[in-house]
Amino acid sequence: MNERQQARRPGGRGARVGAAVHQAVTDLVTDRGYGKFTVAEVAARAGVADSSIYRRWGSLETLLTDVALTRLNEQSPMPDTGTLVGDLRAYAAQVARVITGPDGLAVLRLTVALSSNGEKGLQARDAFLAERNEKLQSMLDRATARGENAPDALGVLDHVMAPMYVRILFGLGPLTPEYVDGLVDRLL
Amino acid sequence: MNERQQARRPGGRGARVGAAVHQAVTDLVTDRGYGKFTVAEVAARAGVADSSIYRRWGSLETLLTDVALTRLNEQSPMPDTGTLVGDLRAYAAQVARVITGPDGLAVLRLTVALSSNGEKGLQARDAFLAERNEKLQSMLDRATARGENAPDALGVLDHVMAPMYVRILFGLGPLTPEYVDGLVDRLL
Repeated sequence: MNERQQARRPGGRGARVGAAVHQAVTDLVTDRGYGKFTVAEVAARAGVADSSIYRRWGSLETLLTDVALTRLNEQSPMPDTGTLVGDLRAYAAQVARVITGPDGLAVLRLTVALSSNGEKGLQARDAFLAERNEKLQSMLDRATARGENAPDALGVLDHVMAPMYVRILFGLGPLTPEYVDGLVDRLL
Repeated sequence: MNERQQARRPGGRGARVGAAVHQAVTDLVTDRGYGKFTVAEVAARAGVADSSIYRRWGSLETLLTDVALTRLNEQSPMPDTGTLVGDLRAYAAQVARVITGPDGLAVLRLTVALSSNGEKGLQARDAFLAERNEKLQSMLDRATARGENAPDALGVLDHVMAPMYVRILFGLGPLTPEYVDGLVDRLL
């Protein structure tokens, strides 16, 4: 567990507050959608004081990002299959599963909501994307270290992730395994 | 002018109401963002009765889609340069200009907002995308008729439009002419 995770889930009372607040956010997102509730409503549902939320997260944007990242990391740990094609296919399949799953458009909606929410929103969005990008870059670096000819992370974003995101956003699913593998094979 | 456009802008009083309502929506989107205002607020700002809006557009979703499509069609008429590569490069450059312009993420935000707004929102989104897709398909059909080897419309979406949308959504702009042309050349 790294320092950041410790700060986020310090154990004991802090851990209980963290879990209650995460659950409250998840419930409110499901019930109403992103951008349709306040810190006060999260606090009321979690049974904590507003000030506890502001003290730990600083803003609603940072809290939303923390919840989305935690969920994303639980649902899609970065694969390590031993080959680049295996890793990328497994990664793309995970992303496809998350964005077509019960949470549906949640991560995309959050990204759009943050992009529309001023400087704090943009900072939270960039922190969210930087954390995901760092993990993808590690996967590509491992391939390069093995002597494989890896694309750069932006190439993966442009030609594997972006088509999947936009197809879901535009209601052009489902994302079949053949389609997802095809995006990876075309890139490589 | 086709029948649908006539229905939308019937001239005389209808045209004045249409223009006032479109302007009111554009102002409210700029001031507050999509999903942050009601039909009653549009009506008040446009100086018309709520019932005039419901009679002509049926729902807020349909009205939002009409405004977005009208703006998009004004800003990016489909090019006809005589070659596939010329048409696709011109089309991609237009889309890049619109999504990086002063309206910024507006069209993407609208698509997400509609996707999150129940059955009526989904229908409006699909009508919006179908109208854009039909125009792209005509461009590709012209190329095929000239004997060129055209990709299908989904290929253009996946590998030219989607990367641009996602880069803007994720704050990874600007979209340089070299980048945009490169997406087209890579697809062809």
